Amino acid sequence: MVRHALRLGMVGGGEGAFIGAVHRMAAALDGDWRLVAGAFSTDAGRNQRTGDALGLAPQRVYASFDAMLAGERALPEGERIDAVAVVTPNHLHAPMAIAALEAGFHVFCEKPMAMSVAEAEAIGAAAKASGRHFALAFTYSGYPLVEEARARIARGDLGAIRLVQVEYLQGWLSRPIDEQGNKQAEWRTDPARAGLGGCLGDIGTHAFQLAEHVSGLRVDSVSADLAIHVPGRRLDDDVSALLRFAGGARGVLKASQVAAGEENGLKLRIHGEQGGLEWAQMEPNTLTLRWLDRPAEIVRAGGPGLQDSTAALLRTPSGHPEGYVEAFANLYRAFAAAIRGGGDRWFPGVADGLRTMRFIEAVVANAASDAKWTMVDPGEKE
Amino acid sequence: MVRHALRLGMVGGGEGAFIGAVHRMAAALDGDWRLVAGAFSTDAGRNQRTGDALGLAPQRVYASFDAMLAGERALPEGERIDAVAVVTPNHLHAPMAIAALEAGFHVFCEKPMAMSVAEAEAIGAAAKASGRHFALAFTYSGYPLVEEARARIARGDLGAIRLVQVEYLQGWLSRPIDEQGNKQAEWRTDPARAGLGGCLGDIGTHAFQLAEHVSGLRVDSVSADLAIHVPGRRLDDDVSALLRFAGGARGVLKASQVAAGEENGLKLRIHGEQGGLEWAQMEPNTLTLRWLDRPAEIVRAGGPGLQDSTAALLRTPSGHPEGYVEAFANLYRAFAAAIRGGGDRWFPGVADGLRTMRFIEAVVANAASDAKWTMVDPGEKE
Amino acid sequence: MVRHALRLGMVGGGEGAFIGAVHRMAAALDGDWRLVAGAFSTDAGRNQRTGDALGLAPQRVYASFDAMLAGERALPEGERIDAVAVVTPNHLHAPMAIAALEAGFHVFCEKPMAMSVAEAEAIGAAAKASGRHFALAFTYSGYPLVEEARARIARGDLGAIRLVQVEYLQGWLSRPIDEQGNKQAEWRTDPARAGLGGCLGDIGTHAFQLAEHVSGLRVDSVSADLAIHVPGRRLDDDVSALLRFAGGARGVLKASQVAAGEENGLKLRIHGEQGGLEWAQMEPNTLTLRWLDRPAEIVRAGGPGLQDSTAALLRTPSGHPEGYVEAFANLYRAFAAAIRGGGDRWFPGVADGLRTMRFIEAVVANAASDAKWTMVDPGEKE
Amino acid sequence: MVRHALRLGMVGGGEGAFIGAVHRMAAALDGDWRLVAGAFSTDAGRNQRTGDALGLAPQRVYASFDAMLAGERALPEGERIDAVAVVTPNHLHAPMAIAALEAGFHVFCEKPMAMSVAEAEAIGAAAKASGRHFALAFTYSGYPLVEEARARIARGDLGAIRLVQVEYLQGWLSRPIDEQGNKQAEWRTDPARAGLGGCLGDIGTHAFQLAEHVSGLRVDSVSADLAIHVPGRRLDDDVSALLRFAGGARGVLKASQVAAGEENGLKLRIHGEQGGLEWAQMEPNTLTLRWLDRPAEIVRAGGPGLQDSTAALLRTPSGHPEGYVEAFANLYRAFAAAIRGGGDRWFPGVADGLRTMRFIEAVVANAASDAKWTMVDPGEKE
Repeated sequence: MVRHALRLGMVGGGEGAFIGAVHRMAAALDGDWRLVAGAFSTDAGRNQRTGDALGLAPQRVYASFDAMLAGERALPEGERIDAVAVVTPNHLHAPMAIAALEAGFHVFCEKPMAMSVAEAEAIGAAAKASGRHFALAFTYSGYPLVEEARARIARGDLGAIRLVQVEYLQGWLSRPIDEQGNKQAEWRTDPARAGLGGCLGDIGTHAFQLAEHVSGLRVDSVSADLAIHVPGRRLDDDVSALLRFAGGARGVLKASQVAAGEENGLKLRIHGEQGGLEWAQMEPNTLTLRWLDRPAEIVRAGGPGLQDSTAALLRTPSGHPEGYVEAFANLYRAFAAAIRGGGDRWFPGVADGLRTMRFIEAVVANAASDAKWTMVDPGEKE
Repeated sequence: MVRHALRLGMVGGGEGAFIGAVHRMAAALDGDWRLVAGAFSTDAGRNQRTGDALGLAPQRVYASFDAMLAGERALPEGERIDAVAVVTPNHLHAPMAIAALEAGFHVFCEKPMAMSVAEAEAIGAAAKASGRHFALAFTYSGYPLVEEARARIARGDLGAIRLVQVEYLQGWLSRPIDEQGNKQAEWRTDPARAGLGGCLGDIGTHAFQLAEHVSGLRVDSVSADLAIHVPGRRLDDDVSALLRFAGGARGVLKASQVAAGEENGLKLRIHGEQGGLEWAQMEPNTLTLRWLDRPAEIVRAGGPGLQDSTAALLRTPSGHPEGYVEAFANLYRAFAAAIRGGGDRWFPGVADGLRTMRFIEAVVANAASDAKWTMVDPGEKE
Repeated sequence: MVRHALRLGMVGGGEGAFIGAVHRMAAALDGDWRLVAGAFSTDAGRNQRTGDALGLAPQRVYASFDAMLAGERALPEGERIDAVAVVTPNHLHAPMAIAALEAGFHVFCEKPMAMSVAEAEAIGAAAKASGRHFALAFTYSGYPLVEEARARIARGDLGAIRLVQVEYLQGWLSRPIDEQGNKQAEWRTDPARAGLGGCLGDIGTHAFQLAEHVSGLRVDSVSADLAIHVPGRRLDDDVSALLRFAGGARGVLKASQVAAGEENGLKLRIHGEQGGLEWAQMEPNTLTLRWLDRPAEIVRAGGPGLQDSTAALLRTPSGHPEGYVEAFANLYRAFAAAIRGGGDRWFPGVADGLRTMRFIEAVVANAASDAKWTMVDPGEKE
Repeated sequence: MVRHALRLGMVGGGEGAFIGAVHRMAAALDGDWRLVAGAFSTDAGRNQRTGDALGLAPQRVYASFDAMLAGERALPEGERIDAVAVVTPNHLHAPMAIAALEAGFHVFCEKPMAMSVAEAEAIGAAAKASGRHFALAFTYSGYPLVEEARARIARGDLGAIRLVQVEYLQGWLSRPIDEQGNKQAEWRTDPARAGLGGCLGDIGTHAFQLAEHVSGLRVDSVSADLAIHVPGRRLDDDVSALLRFAGGARGVLKASQVAAGEENGLKLRIHGEQGGLEWAQMEPNTLTLRWLDRPAEIVRAGGPGLQDSTAALLRTPSGHPEGYVEAFANLYRAFAAAIRGGGDRWFPGVADGLRTMRFIEAVVANAASDAKWTMVDPGEKE
């Protein structure tokens, strides 16, 4: 039986935008998805040029998100899109995701999930009510060696976890480019479009999700310091937080977008009673394991010693580096599998989104107060 | 105007094969290509399963390469394939490439180009006669920082080149897996299907092409040692060669498939009067430049200081690693651009293929003789 | 004029002790010092064996510290020791240092300086009153590339400093070896001999001193979390702290002795408006500089681009690695130069010691309270 | 019983010379040696200044090497030197070493051993006749992890050895500094003082000795290319060689002093049937082991998994880097142990020196001929 690609529509991601293009490559890589519709920009010319360049049928390049939902619903089932990729600024995530879910489409949404815990809960409710899948672009959890780290910790290789250190260092907001016409920077530093957190929401959430996902632990409480280093900026560009995990592990989370000269330095280190592991996004095909009683090991993507769940995320033999787009594609592949119904592959979704929204709110509250510790409410419901 | 994807047919690359899947991902990544036809295997069941899994229309999954050429030629121009990807064992490259070119299709062929210089010249002649494009999968030259290295040397950053060191270390043939049912290993060690060289043809050619492409220099003569370390093997599994370049530079080329524990260790180092550079395929987003009089520099994919020709090969901001598939996709993108007629992007083709075939013949001849140096005939015609 | 070595006496450092042997190598390396006297152990046999193995004259192997002070004072000036190296557990630092200073000897003391700020102030007063030099073994500030980092920041290369991240990860206390007869572990986890801090005093102080020394900034206030991960341990084995520096920079300090598998992972990263730097003790001959607008640079010990103050700390050409003992020896050399009177070389002393004692007290106070921030009293007097 | 330091005299190594100072630090580090005499320079002023700066008694700063031998022989046994360190240009090694041995002193000599195989054999004969020890400064074999590599290969960890790759890249002779007053460069490029080889003798010998010492194999024959890249230079500044080892292993040796931007890049890689190892002098505290069937391991100086013979060469716990001087000091320590009579520690001596002299002669002969392979005579006698 011929296996047809699923059909994807996209909102946002007009020419020049970064993340929309990444979604398109990630969806295309394995042939699981075919982009067939889009509402790429509210600027009609830009919208059309984007659709043309992508080879879309003109009638499926829609003037608005609402028009896309309506237009696609009107198509027969074998033609209309299966899912919507939401790649807009944060303030549009919740309304669009909810509308798409309610219109019967699956949703692959950019992070952070929403503007607030309440919005995130509303998305969760809509997903549940609609029976549709909701995927969240916590891309880094799609890397094979992130899965290896998670699986090994879950198996107990490190013993009980004591320390979690996660950091995410970028330097691209070191100057006030948000006031100099850089669109990526502009909305990310605008509370109306970005939400409560600047750096916190943009990359602090990645760090937090990775730490919880890989360690398998929940953060109980945080003590945080938010800074604005670039004068005039309205949202934090630098985050420091101490973490206390349920069960006693201690953590440090550092995220910054003013670490001048840094690129995309997401790094996770976790230590347990027997050893520790280290993974860094910029060299993602290596996982270092250090042990109390024997030499450190370098576990390599494609190399010996991998868990089955890791091997399932790889496309090439060891030494043929896979990167960011491949990690992203792993999420799209798992999302497709879930939609097709054969899916036992994990992908980040509502639960991850809710946790990170609670984290944002806890950090913002703590940083604004004199209290040492603020609880990250663990009571989310999916 | 809507930009349609070009149509690709593939010969070889049935389920389980490594390189066919890579070609498909590379072709799909940027939306430039759409796989629409294939003759994936002479095993009918395997052929059909591969086509189905890839979502091909059943009538375009052909029982043989000849059937594919005939079937596609019979289709109207707006439907038939634009190009054929030849991903078969080496002995089939020349006959298939020539047939495809003569049938009016462009060809993207796996390396090494052919079984002999004579065959390679025949392909070149067919390409010329047909006016069709011929691309050769010297994948590593598609990496952005390989282009950066090349462009900087061409610009004179290092001064006159003195030393070229290239190595390509793999360990996967350390055991006699070619006699234990590993199909990849089997044909690569069979002179009838692989040609004159084993390791030499399979990866020594990559090393040689990279060295000449990046240095901009031609190897004049070689002094080589070919070894068979695994008893019973019929082709070399280990290559060592001294290189003398026109103009006086000296080089060393080392390739091995019995470097136990190594993955895919292709590394190039070039030194000139003013400094040197180093690039390693397994961490491909970094190019190290060392200087006589100032600190070494780490040039990063997406970071500051890149040439325009490098930037054109990148898809993501610095720190978001791109890998092997992306490098490969750069070749498919340049190949598409050439076919579309707007193409000023370089891709490896007949000239690179001829040089590497001459290199194979020179090394084999030298290793079998008592002569210190053997010329690599520089007289190829494109 | 013949340049004679200065004469050193040592208290502590009997056979089997780690740090005493390091002091002896560091003192010997450049020929500036000659060990001539010692009170190595209160165990008479061990004391004698240590002295014999070191080739000391038997009459200068003293039964006690007091005996050494008295015995040496009784010798003529050209024979008696010039300085005492105090390499005992922490609780003995202050009484011994003060006694030695008052007896007219210079003192090179292990860190942390003392058991409290009050004791540290008393040492400072004794040094001032005696006119003798007091050096403190903040070894890591003796590395050449630490000086390079300091000098470049002081020169403004990075612009105004925004972020300071310092970490010191060890794993050797991951198990309760302090209860299993390991003497090094035993006293370090005993409040009566180690003081207020465990990991905090032992290595957190190194991290803090390095951060302030290199950044040139003062920590204003801290928010800290101290943990005891090994059950039954009486002092912290893990430290996490947020730092606020005078002038607005933010910092994170992480120190742990239960980071299983880690060795001696002291790492410092500092970012300013224009770029950042990174130095790691375990590969100490490399300093990485990253920039907003140009490629990162790798500054190497002995390589091009070093400040004069760095070059003065080097013994070998670039590529001939210098290590921990050489860094330590730089402190002994500077200490000797100061004693000889030609000394304009910096070495860590009373001021550094006082700051770190204040830091210990602030962290302990903060960790025990509900307050978010605790001031690190900047009012020390030297 | 008090353990007295052995007494060392030095010939060569006046102020400003590099290697003499290194010998002095290496000898001093562990307290095994005390420098008491010297003939540092034929320039009387420089000689005296060197002796004074080192704190030598004026009567033991000798005007010539002969004067030193005579003067020291005239002293009573408990005062006179035990050994002579020969740190002069190559052409003086043999006459001085032989004279010192015949005068009853042990000798620690710089490499290469001599100007010819014949001279090296004469030294060997003198050592044998005198019953004195002869140590040769193949410093790099003093690194702890070099010993670890050697011991593991000897134990069979890698299985039968197939590949040996050794390289030694420097860039300091990239310009004609030998014609611009650099004394280090001057004599090293002068055949009358350096011998048959330039780069070959200076660092190619280090690479060769390391390869044979660690692999435990003998090079049977070589095919070599010697280059002079800097116009006007009289000795090779760049060496490339293919190696065939007895038993079938194949090797590549690359040494260059015109690899612009390189520092002191000595690197050794050896692969056997089961795995491979890699050691690089510039990060000497790490030994990487790669395996066919399990993840690579990072063996660290001071860390878990070391052989006893490695641990005996270490001074500090893991993570406290030891460097070049410490490696050198290991040779002086082993030399001292041999003299004291309790010595079962290995150090490089006559056998290593003879092998490297034969290697030099074989490479020079091969490079000048049309022959593919030249034997490295294995018939040396110790």
